[in-house]
Amino acid sequence: MPEFDCEKPELAFKKTGGLLPAIAQDYLTGEVLMLAYMNEASWEETIKSGMATYYSRSRQKLWKKGETSGHMQVVKEIRIDCDNDTVLLKVDQIGGAACHEGYKSCFFRKVHDGESLVIVEKKVFDPEKVY
Amino acid sequence: MPEFDCEKPELAFKKTGGLLPAIAQDYLTGEVLMLAYMNEASWEETIKSGMATYYSRSRQKLWKKGETSGHMQVVKEIRIDCDNDTVLLKVDQIGGAACHEGYKSCFFRKVHDGESLVIVEKKVFDPEKVY
Repeated sequence: MPEFDCEKPELAFKKTGGLLPAIAQDYLTGEVLMLAYMNEASWEETIKSGMATYYSRSRQKLWKKGETSGHMQVVKEIRIDCDNDTVLLKVDQIGGAACHEGYKSCFFRKVHDGESLVIVEKKVFDPEKVY
Repeated sequence: MPEFDCEKPELAFKKTGGLLPAIAQDYLTGEVLMLAYMNEASWEETIKSGMATYYSRSRQKLWKKGETSGHMQVVKEIRIDCDNDTVLLKVDQIGGAACHEGYKSCFFRKVHDGESLVIVEKKVFDPEKVY
């Protein structure tokens, strides 16, 4: 039997001034797609809707991922970490790309010898045609 | 040929008050192990030493992962995201466990129906014997 914790998930929004990091990971391949932030309202909306919903720090508002691009994230599983201050979403990335620059993952650049950056992925879409 | 970016990796420490989130991922399985924070000194130490080094927000000092437990993280690859404000470390997790509670991953709890938490992993070590 799985071990149940009787408590409701209580995320530590207060500890961090209201925002927690949320990692989105491809639910099939394990690839890390992006990191964004959640406030309590975006956490509740994610739970309710089953679609990844973040808080945009630049626009200062709730951000349903894919609302502009159509590249939504269907939430398949949610994990929270031991400190209750990071969320991990296992998602089905609609359109195959999470990054606004057209790549599957926002982590498309590798640090080479600590000194330069190499693009190690291929673009999935042309951002100029989507945004 | 891979596409090189001539710039040195310039992380956006200034944008965020000096700390950036860093995700540690198992370099073989893709499992997300933990999220911690880096300041500029820990970033430089990670590059220099090849061992994951974070900044402990609670202890307010550089934190070489595994310095107490022996569960160090050998950095196999570093990615940075499109906004230069998140680090992804692909690591070889020494001892097979990243979490101070004894699990491989800090994300050992799954949110069930949005209402409760289920422990979905097995302990790798007994924390009382390590710390």
